[in-house]
Amino acid sequence: MKLDFDITIIGNGSASPHKTRYPAAQYLSTEGHHWLVDCGEGTQFRLMRMGLKRSKLEGIVITHMHGDHYLGLFGLLSSMSMDQRSKPLYIVGPSSLESLVKAHINQGGYQMSYAIEFIHTDGVKEKVTLLEQGGLKLESFPLQHRIPCWGYRFTYHKQTYHLKLDKIKLLGIPQSAWSQIGKGMDYADDTMNYMNAELTDKEEQWKSYAYCSDTAYFDELVNYIRGVDLLYHEATFLEAKSIRASETFHATANQAATIALKGQVRDLLIGHFSSRYDELDEFLIEAKQVFESTQIAEQGQVFSIQ
Amino acid sequence: MKLDFDITIIGNGSASPHKTRYPAAQYLSTEGHHWLVDCGEGTQFRLMRMGLKRSKLEGIVITHMHGDHYLGLFGLLSSMSMDQRSKPLYIVGPSSLESLVKAHINQGGYQMSYAIEFIHTDGVKEKVTLLEQGGLKLESFPLQHRIPCWGYRFTYHKQTYHLKLDKIKLLGIPQSAWSQIGKGMDYADDTMNYMNAELTDKEEQWKSYAYCSDTAYFDELVNYIRGVDLLYHEATFLEAKSIRASETFHATANQAATIALKGQVRDLLIGHFSSRYDELDEFLIEAKQVFESTQIAEQGQVFSIQ
Repeated sequence: MKLDFDITIIGNGSASPHKTRYPAAQYLSTEGHHWLVDCGEGTQFRLMRMGLKRSKLEGIVITHMHGDHYLGLFGLLSSMSMDQRSKPLYIVGPSSLESLVKAHINQGGYQMSYAIEFIHTDGVKEKVTLLEQGGLKLESFPLQHRIPCWGYRFTYHKQTYHLKLDKIKLLGIPQSAWSQIGKGMDYADDTMNYMNAELTDKEEQWKSYAYCSDTAYFDELVNYIRGVDLLYHEATFLEAKSIRASETFHATANQAATIALKGQVRDLLIGHFSSRYDELDEFLIEAKQVFESTQIAEQGQVFSIQ
Repeated sequence: MKLDFDITIIGNGSASPHKTRYPAAQYLSTEGHHWLVDCGEGTQFRLMRMGLKRSKLEGIVITHMHGDHYLGLFGLLSSMSMDQRSKPLYIVGPSSLESLVKAHINQGGYQMSYAIEFIHTDGVKEKVTLLEQGGLKLESFPLQHRIPCWGYRFTYHKQTYHLKLDKIKLLGIPQSAWSQIGKGMDYADDTMNYMNAELTDKEEQWKSYAYCSDTAYFDELVNYIRGVDLLYHEATFLEAKSIRASETFHATANQAATIALKGQVRDLLIGHFSSRYDELDEFLIEAKQVFESTQIAEQGQVFSIQ
């Protein structure tokens, strides 16, 4: 049974603004879940233009307090309130983000139409689970940047119960009970008692995505992202600028690919390109030399985990 | 002698985001002066695309603490620091804006490359002069909005001294002194002493611009903007929505034009259109019925005060 899990790239730029590359933001969609991953300045306008509905968002994760990763948040939150949103919204990030969100709301005299549920990352020193609901697990882990910064791992787990129809009919289980059995329930009536496993073939599916921006190269990161289907890893510089990369706590395309290789992920996406580069071909060439299954996180493109 | 004074419209939208109209921002240029007037989210990207240099900015005025008027400020300030700007920058607005700017800088761990000189508007209860330098005077005055909000008036005054060459030559004043006389200086040597007025024809020019966004209609505003060459006044709604306008402390096109008429300004620009309107023709028709010399503040357009 097909399980959709899509990442739409809203911005693949870095801190210093570029004419055509926007600051960090991605839109993650899977069954019944929609999350924004980072929210650089102008994200709300690009969501509108790309037809991605802010009303659907369940939550927003922010990696760190550099402007190119969070400055679009306040405008988006205020627009959601003008929409008269009533559903609560998760915001995941450091507690300093909560302070700033509250300061903006207070200064603007806004009466928000919905509740914000903040989940703080401050204490996260290794991989920890922050939230688990509706089949989606959100984990966070520390990155190594100039200021505290966290990566995120989303795992969607789906269980599908395929009815063993021949057996169910043979046992005379009434059709009215089939829907519940199809949701994984056992079946019992006055005379019979069957475990679900006797009546269905259970199919389990997992899809996982890890987002690592911004970070210097460090080996422990491999443990946090091991085995994900899709890894997004920043590649701000080419290897020729590796000194500049390590000075600014960023990674090169080569380093991103090395993390992907060591972590045995299936596919790698690279982004967060420095505005000093206009062409991105070299990033792909450099990464593919280490890890073949690499793609550029092109803006506007949707990457579906198969 | 020609005196340039240009207003470039960066955004003419209002709080609720619109697909093609951006939040408030204008770029004011006159001889040796460049100011940003409001700085909605994404302004820095639009400046780049329009070829307007952030490096030239002497200061930024912010009217009030609603997101559509200031959320582009933090990204722009941080980009200027990445540019290694050294020239100080004025930021004019309420003291709460200073607190937020400092909070963003602190949270991001930024070491800014330049000094920010804050000029607070909190105490401004009538028209007052905030700054006067290099021929440019910046005044502020209170508007009437849901939260404290200020309008701004820019006046550029230029004195040009045209040499009376025939007389200067006749008097035998050496050519080495002409440049100083042309700047308005008197001339004296061992035997002669002349006031500048004897040696030049003085030409005086004034150009003035007032920016009023966001505000409900109120009569006292006429005193603050009286006689300006160009008035920008918000027109969030058409007169058919005048109740909604007054509830939200906004103005209609008719009201904007009424202020222009009563204030005997030369030209009127209207903007800050609600996202409920896709077409703007009706705004122009409505305003022109009251004040003929009205234009729509179209994004990307440059309005030159002649």
